[in-house]
Amino acid sequence: MLEHELFILMDLLGTFAFAVSGAAAAREQRLDVFGAYAVAFLTACGGGIVRDLCLGVLPPAGISDWNYVACSGLAATMAIWASAWLDRLSYPVRLFDALGLGFFAVAGAHKALTHGANIEAAIVLGTVTAVGGGVFRDVLLNRVPVILAKEIYALAALVAAIIQVLAEVYRWRIAVTPWFAAGACFMIRFLALRYAWGLPLVSANERQ
Amino acid sequence: MLEHELFILMDLLGTFAFAVSGAAAAREQRLDVFGAYAVAFLTACGGGIVRDLCLGVLPPAGISDWNYVACSGLAATMAIWASAWLDRLSYPVRLFDALGLGFFAVAGAHKALTHGANIEAAIVLGTVTAVGGGVFRDVLLNRVPVILAKEIYALAALVAAIIQVLAEVYRWRIAVTPWFAAGACFMIRFLALRYAWGLPLVSANERQ
Amino acid sequence: MLEHELFILMDLLGTFAFAVSGAAAAREQRLDVFGAYAVAFLTACGGGIVRDLCLGVLPPAGISDWNYVACSGLAATMAIWASAWLDRLSYPVRLFDALGLGFFAVAGAHKALTHGANIEAAIVLGTVTAVGGGVFRDVLLNRVPVILAKEIYALAALVAAIIQVLAEVYRWRIAVTPWFAAGACFMIRFLALRYAWGLPLVSANERQ
Repeated sequence: MLEHELFILMDLLGTFAFAVSGAAAAREQRLDVFGAYAVAFLTACGGGIVRDLCLGVLPPAGISDWNYVACSGLAATMAIWASAWLDRLSYPVRLFDALGLGFFAVAGAHKALTHGANIEAAIVLGTVTAVGGGVFRDVLLNRVPVILAKEIYALAALVAAIIQVLAEVYRWRIAVTPWFAAGACFMIRFLALRYAWGLPLVSANERQ
Repeated sequence: MLEHELFILMDLLGTFAFAVSGAAAAREQRLDVFGAYAVAFLTACGGGIVRDLCLGVLPPAGISDWNYVACSGLAATMAIWASAWLDRLSYPVRLFDALGLGFFAVAGAHKALTHGANIEAAIVLGTVTAVGGGVFRDVLLNRVPVILAKEIYALAALVAAIIQVLAEVYRWRIAVTPWFAAGACFMIRFLALRYAWGLPLVSANERQ
Repeated sequence: MLEHELFILMDLLGTFAFAVSGAAAAREQRLDVFGAYAVAFLTACGGGIVRDLCLGVLPPAGISDWNYVACSGLAATMAIWASAWLDRLSYPVRLFDALGLGFFAVAGAHKALTHGANIEAAIVLGTVTAVGGGVFRDVLLNRVPVILAKEIYALAALVAAIIQVLAEVYRWRIAVTPWFAAGACFMIRFLALRYAWGLPLVSANERQ
């Protein structure tokens, strides 16, 4: 029971962090207030909705559980109306986003295993939970998803999902695992931001 | 039974209206005939397909019921081949689209309740039914969805969905409700078009 | 049993062909290595994932069956690291893509019928299996999907899906049908490439 609540807490923290990032992105485009809330909601809940569709958990929690709408609405309200505050905190916001990434990957992988997904599907769905919302955000704002082109981002979520899935399947010390997995994701992101780590680019020109 | 047919009629009217708007958008890009039909179909049925996926009504009615394909095909054919007619009727087409918006929101919310969605999910899915197709259209045509940036559009659908859901849940005078809800949506859109109502924009620059 | 294996073989061949095309498209943008693999995977498996969501086959085979990930990963690796080879083979790659198109349309239509879809849904889902991945690729790379604007592409997949579905429903000589249907699709694509066949464009300007 306590453990169950832990995953819900992780999920809501991730929702809040991603909704802030979605609303911040909306401010860079000329969206109206409704658009900003919609993009914040989809950034926060899009990945989880795709995960639930793939697991057959219908209707997806993101649209049938008031907590997610309320949480992303609160975060978007703060991001929209307290934007001066947001501008000064851009570095903390990115760290917050890294925290949300780890929480979502762990909570997503856990939910997938709970609903009977196999190891591979749980790893993929954990990662999708974490990065899916950002892809929705970028597709809606008409740009190439940043996770495909910049920095180490999805890889960090992948690592967290793998740790969580292996730990649950092979019954490692479950109680600590979620924090360890999310922490590993956070550390990778933190180091990638700090030292501008990136993967090699794949470009037609470079190879000629 | 009669009531059931009413919702089917509303759904088909909405399908027709949105397919026209999808085909009209396709004409502004350099799409080929197949592309125009595909965009018209997805504009008309995309929202309903997402709703059915979220409700577990599989396969979605949009792809398993000939009526929707035939209806959107007919509308697209008119929009493509009678385009001179369409150009002169651009204002009526927008009103027609406003009608479709209300019909879809009502029919979508009703279907969601029928399949066991709770109040929140039914309101969200009614709105998604109404605006989802337009988002597909804009993403495929590579532009920021207009519903995120312009005019009062999704809000009108949201109002219709809320009226319909509350009426069904609290058993108000069901027989009149669908028309009242769709009518409210139409009026909001009509006034928004007439007086160029819009929501405030959310932009990083405005706040400095 | 033998027949079942045939469809799996067709599916894997299609996966390989499309993953190559996805990775090749990723090279034209400035994606990183992770992005290239992700786009290759979604190009190869995106259509099938949508098909499985619509059929209620959950979780979708594309994310729960190692074969698809391994196959698209292998193809992407070849396309990324042996890119000089890819440049010289651009025409063969397009033929290979035409082969994958037919295989996917046939395998997708067959799977849809196996899971209880009606004639219309099976034809639509066969076509979606074949062209869906390419739409994901183009939306992620932020361009209008080529299947909407250029050449005869989706029509070839549609023809293959129709042949396969009619043959299964009316019990024609099943054993030969898959090859015949995929072959018809390949021939249409081959001729369309060779003679630059295209559908008429639908454009607002042309009609004034």
